[in-house]
Amino acid sequence: MNLEIRIGELTRDLALLAMFSGDPAPAVTRVVFSEQDLQARKFVKDRCLRAGLTVREDAVGNTFARWTGAEPDLPAVATGSHIDAIPNAGAYDGTVGVLGGLEAIRALQRSGFRPRRSVELIVFSAEEPTRFGIGCFGSRMLAGLLDAPLDGSTLRDKDGKTLEEWRAEAGFHGATASVPLPPGHYHAFVELHIEQGPLLEARGIPLGVVTAIAAPASLRMWIEGEGGHAGALLMPDRHDAFCAAAEIVLVVESAARSTGAVDTVGTVGVCDVFPGAVNSVPSRVRLEVDVRDTDLARRDGVLASIERECGEVSARRGVTVRTEIVNRDRPAACDSGVVEALARAAAAHGLAYRKMVSRAYHDTLFMSQIAPAAMLFIPCRGGISHRPDEFAAPEAIAAGALVLAEALGELAS
Amino acid sequence: MNLEIRIGELTRDLALLAMFSGDPAPAVTRVVFSEQDLQARKFVKDRCLRAGLTVREDAVGNTFARWTGAEPDLPAVATGSHIDAIPNAGAYDGTVGVLGGLEAIRALQRSGFRPRRSVELIVFSAEEPTRFGIGCFGSRMLAGLLDAPLDGSTLRDKDGKTLEEWRAEAGFHGATASVPLPPGHYHAFVELHIEQGPLLEARGIPLGVVTAIAAPASLRMWIEGEGGHAGALLMPDRHDAFCAAAEIVLVVESAARSTGAVDTVGTVGVCDVFPGAVNSVPSRVRLEVDVRDTDLARRDGVLASIERECGEVSARRGVTVRTEIVNRDRPAACDSGVVEALARAAAAHGLAYRKMVSRAYHDTLFMSQIAPAAMLFIPCRGGISHRPDEFAAPEAIAAGALVLAEALGELAS
Repeated sequence: MNLEIRIGELTRDLALLAMFSGDPAPAVTRVVFSEQDLQARKFVKDRCLRAGLTVREDAVGNTFARWTGAEPDLPAVATGSHIDAIPNAGAYDGTVGVLGGLEAIRALQRSGFRPRRSVELIVFSAEEPTRFGIGCFGSRMLAGLLDAPLDGSTLRDKDGKTLEEWRAEAGFHGATASVPLPPGHYHAFVELHIEQGPLLEARGIPLGVVTAIAAPASLRMWIEGEGGHAGALLMPDRHDAFCAAAEIVLVVESAARSTGAVDTVGTVGVCDVFPGAVNSVPSRVRLEVDVRDTDLARRDGVLASIERECGEVSARRGVTVRTEIVNRDRPAACDSGVVEALARAAAAHGLAYRKMVSRAYHDTLFMSQIAPAAMLFIPCRGGISHRPDEFAAPEAIAAGALVLAEALGELAS
Repeated sequence: MNLEIRIGELTRDLALLAMFSGDPAPAVTRVVFSEQDLQARKFVKDRCLRAGLTVREDAVGNTFARWTGAEPDLPAVATGSHIDAIPNAGAYDGTVGVLGGLEAIRALQRSGFRPRRSVELIVFSAEEPTRFGIGCFGSRMLAGLLDAPLDGSTLRDKDGKTLEEWRAEAGFHGATASVPLPPGHYHAFVELHIEQGPLLEARGIPLGVVTAIAAPASLRMWIEGEGGHAGALLMPDRHDAFCAAAEIVLVVESAARSTGAVDTVGTVGVCDVFPGAVNSVPSRVRLEVDVRDTDLARRDGVLASIERECGEVSARRGVTVRTEIVNRDRPAACDSGVVEALARAAAAHGLAYRKMVSRAYHDTLFMSQIAPAAMLFIPCRGGISHRPDEFAAPEAIAAGALVLAEALGELAS
């Protein structure tokens, strides 16, 4: 196919999208259902409508923009990613797969290609766990894999506001039972994404074809000790919840390191100390913990070791530690048919690629449960992501969009 | 003197005052200049006016309610404490010294006593460090001992709002230079307070006469590492600011324990993790640290050891640790004349007392710099303070107010 990626337009749109941010540039903060997220959704839908696509939104805000094929009753070929961003993040995570996916469709349109199957761009709702503590909320729902009840007992933000309240305010009213899509609904799914790791850049390879996605688990922990006056409560009498939490933070770090495998990571990214006064001994601490691995058994071994050590800290310090498992997902294997379509598309344009594993968490993890799926990675500078200095070069984005267009064209034929 | 404490009225007023709270009962949250603090100030001023006292407020909200003596030009005798409360605190810390001090004055009035010197009740502004990070702000200002500049570069709350903005909104407009009082302004100062420690209750002694107050120091620390994606940033490449902070929390604990002295305490009560997302490696952490001791050299030894260990953590983890000393006060020795007046007053009513050291932080620490000063402690249940279950029995409060009245009467004669 005679495909041309208009990279100037694409990078301009990425820069415009980055302006919908709760923090000043270059930081991007765009929590799902925030004012900035709603403005960004409008921006993307507008771009889709201009490309002649038909836009549909489901009851939790997943957005589908369809280029109808010659045989519209056949399962469509889909691509897409997310536009929400964690606090103080960058401009490329997710957005490259959304605006790059749209540009791939436009490149196919401009080439004169007429798809047999419909081609659909999906903007997944709430890929980041910031608001509700659970990652890939939208694609989990699509795949029917959300374990948490939707009644608000679990899906609340830190101020207690529920998913139901948030989605209603954002204008998404339908029954959530209508969200899941049946296996077979899509013929194939491909997600274009920045690598969020250093490998492609370090080896000078322009593309990664993802064959598997690491298995994430996330926990919430409540450590409860005994508070008191910081001057008067003597050291031997203390059951300081924050000292216990500090030990647990170091337990998570050392448990992740102890496997010796480069793919095991463990992080405590959220900590709330109660009552949070300089002259008060902390009585309660809440932590959020993230453990990932490409190997399910190894990751679950780390979780077990964290649990064991928390028991030890709890007993020694006279505090209670309560753990809730928010999610504990299985790794995804990508579909070899889609993987090979991506490999052929790269080869067709003379671009080198490397088959690789994704250690980061993506909507494809869940889409792979209901559709043959794979991912296409492009390098990002220094492997850096979730930071304001996250960066992908225009030529890297263009190469990704080009190979995506080629593969979508083949899959939709 | 024929003194009668109306304990029913006093405990009822303590209960009413506790209702001005930002959190539901039994928790008391009353941060200085909050709506609840302003309502509580009005309540106390109203009670003072009903007792026939003349009320004056200074430029930072310290409140003075005077019972004019027969020789009004003589330096007055003062008593008082604070009504602000840290988040999720109890109903007795500070308030017993304010409403108990007022009841002591009323008991003197009812007895027919006519004071030679004026007797003044002081309600100190911002004893708790919650809003501006510095304890005893009001009494520090009165004593001319505030090192921090008042221009807002230091005295800001965590949202960046300055003292100047807060006091203006609260209706306190005068020049802050008018706040300090000269040495000799008061003939004596006595503060009635709950012990906030277990000693009096454990030994069954109704009163403590405080001869010295422990020396507090508080620090703010900023730990700066490197952030990134919690899935993709590999463990060997991390400079996780929160793991470093966790080590520092444990360093503070072990440095305080290492002196072997019961009077050394160290606490980390505040922790902010940035960016604060479950899937993001923390790049920056802010801690607030409190270290106290009755012995200045020993306390400064703990501070030095914390600094040394922070340097080690910083070097090993490749993070930076910046420390700001918010305050580093000297211990206060109480005035022997006022101490003996309290001892005589207790004996006059057949009440046992114990001379003791205060490990907690009080406005008397600063008042002792400009006036002969001492404190009177009453037991509180389990030594518990800064918690909703803080409690002092009515008979304990009555004994404190009675002996305070007796001592104020002697000092004002």
